[in-house]
Amino acid sequence: MTIKVGIIGGGQLGRMLALSGAPLGMQFTFLDPGEAPCATVAGRHIRAAFDDLPALEALCDENDVVTFEFENISAEALDTLSARELYPPVAALRAAQERKHEKQLFESVGIPVAPWRAINSQADLDQAVADLGLPLIAKTRTLGYDGKGQTRLQQADEATDLFTQMGSVPLLVERLVSFDSELSIIGTRARDGDVVIYPLTRNWHRDGILHRSECTDPGNTLRRQAHRHFQALTEALDYVGTLALECFVCDSLLLGNEFAPRVHNSGHWTQNGTLCSQFENHLRAVTGLPLGHSLHARPAGMLNLIGQLPDQTHVLRQPDCYWHGYDKTGRPGRKIGHINVVSSDQKRVAERLDTLERELGLSR
Amino acid sequence: MTIKVGIIGGGQLGRMLALSGAPLGMQFTFLDPGEAPCATVAGRHIRAAFDDLPALEALCDENDVVTFEFENISAEALDTLSARELYPPVAALRAAQERKHEKQLFESVGIPVAPWRAINSQADLDQAVADLGLPLIAKTRTLGYDGKGQTRLQQADEATDLFTQMGSVPLLVERLVSFDSELSIIGTRARDGDVVIYPLTRNWHRDGILHRSECTDPGNTLRRQAHRHFQALTEALDYVGTLALECFVCDSLLLGNEFAPRVHNSGHWTQNGTLCSQFENHLRAVTGLPLGHSLHARPAGMLNLIGQLPDQTHVLRQPDCYWHGYDKTGRPGRKIGHINVVSSDQKRVAERLDTLERELGLSR
Repeated sequence: MTIKVGIIGGGQLGRMLALSGAPLGMQFTFLDPGEAPCATVAGRHIRAAFDDLPALEALCDENDVVTFEFENISAEALDTLSARELYPPVAALRAAQERKHEKQLFESVGIPVAPWRAINSQADLDQAVADLGLPLIAKTRTLGYDGKGQTRLQQADEATDLFTQMGSVPLLVERLVSFDSELSIIGTRARDGDVVIYPLTRNWHRDGILHRSECTDPGNTLRRQAHRHFQALTEALDYVGTLALECFVCDSLLLGNEFAPRVHNSGHWTQNGTLCSQFENHLRAVTGLPLGHSLHARPAGMLNLIGQLPDQTHVLRQPDCYWHGYDKTGRPGRKIGHINVVSSDQKRVAERLDTLERELGLSR
Repeated sequence: MTIKVGIIGGGQLGRMLALSGAPLGMQFTFLDPGEAPCATVAGRHIRAAFDDLPALEALCDENDVVTFEFENISAEALDTLSARELYPPVAALRAAQERKHEKQLFESVGIPVAPWRAINSQADLDQAVADLGLPLIAKTRTLGYDGKGQTRLQQADEATDLFTQMGSVPLLVERLVSFDSELSIIGTRARDGDVVIYPLTRNWHRDGILHRSECTDPGNTLRRQAHRHFQALTEALDYVGTLALECFVCDSLLLGNEFAPRVHNSGHWTQNGTLCSQFENHLRAVTGLPLGHSLHARPAGMLNLIGQLPDQTHVLRQPDCYWHGYDKTGRPGRKIGHINVVSSDQKRVAERLDTLERELGLSR
């Protein structure tokens, strides 16, 4: 009853997938160009570039199912493998890789978005400033993550020559909405269409990188929108696996920002706050096993550890704190671990996160 | 901040230790004579006999701390390594390996036991039958596990020649008490003497092998005895790590039966029923990290999978069931996995276990 799972990408998401999948009887192989990617603690390693077709073919041949933990990989390469069991679907990867396709997809399934324009020239950019007004945010359409490839436009003169400054590549500009909070909707869809949606997660970013998450109940109105959006998006994509949809809360409206066709940093709290994490449910979905429905969710939150690790002993001494290190070398801006906090109510979770930030020197 | 942990033994207990320790930043090496022991899914493998001194030295040299997951190993060999960080203490291993030492230890710390005699000859055995009366149970003093090396004596004529039949090795006989239930007390003691005790566990055996466990609250009287016994035993041994003390409940008295100086099958439910399992707490203890105190225990239970695996899909379809496979080949009497059940109350846990037993064909 061993199920062999191939994973494209060998980072911390792959690592946590493997650690959660081993008890289910799964064995893992990672395709990753790195010398000793941290996921290989619990699996084999095929060292190859993400678009190395023979290596991708080998990954498919040696495994019952293939998935990915990283989305800057070649959809074209994956398409050549389309006869295999490969989840999530390549169409989801493709849409998440290109901001214009992503916005169009959101609109097509009824997820409201901030006003936006696709930009292919400086003239397009000038027209967008005139149409949408300021402030705007300009983003490269591909290869953006953790806030990279983004520029804010506050004043009209900042737009002059911006297209060239951003590399003369296709851009997308959107109205910079003033939002109340950032929410992500994490859930999993099975091969048979069964869906599990976790409690919603509120996120705080710093320098474009996720800093802190707390699970949250934003009330019926927003929760209903969130569930509808998740259902609509995953149905449209005939999605299989865990997906994260990131939204802005503007008054009582959820605006879709972007989505990730994979397990997501803002869902890491599910490791300790539920009995079937986003990782286990992703694996159950892609291998065709039933989803874990009895989530037993508890008030929880997460703090990312970026650049360097704080004092582990101090953290473990706090009741309700759970440590997740990725066995990665620290360097500025690099995610190398996270701390999950679980408590009896959400207010205590927030207080513990506040205290941890202060004590570990992570406050600003 | 990587902590290197060497583990003597590479079975499922080692496997579950490694899977729970990886997030804490630990790396594992297993010493085991097997070709591909199931623990090595998440660690290096030194293939050597358990009493291979150079291999044991290498394990010590390459790791910050050494522990064991299996107690039929040579205490003498470990003693030669006594300058190293090795937990639990060898004295605990030695006491658990020899039933006479074990009983004497229990008595010395105030844990009541059934009347017993040490037997070195047929004459000793005849005298014990006369002193203690029948029924008795005769056990080899060393190398017993899962009910092996045990014989019940119901009638006087069964004692004739029994010493020879059991191999003319040192035995221990004890009065066969009629007990209400079997309980185990699982807990962890840190290097600084800090102790965590999990909710008590009720156990059911079949053919001497653990079949089913449920966490249980047997009331104040028994719980107080259990905690006192655990504290007394671990203090006397200056114990470090997770320990399981197995007892019989006779009316309102706990009688000590035996103990295991390691993580234990009857504590597997802590993987899903608490936020810091017996495995994580064992590792925290032996590496000198603070124990996980906020156990958030939930009503839970466990069913062992012995010999062959049942239908996984059926199990995962049940709400509240969690699958733990060991990636071991099935054969009669071999433990190859377990199912944890977690629910909102203990009665539902028992009902779910009943249903699973019936549906999976594990009932008798």
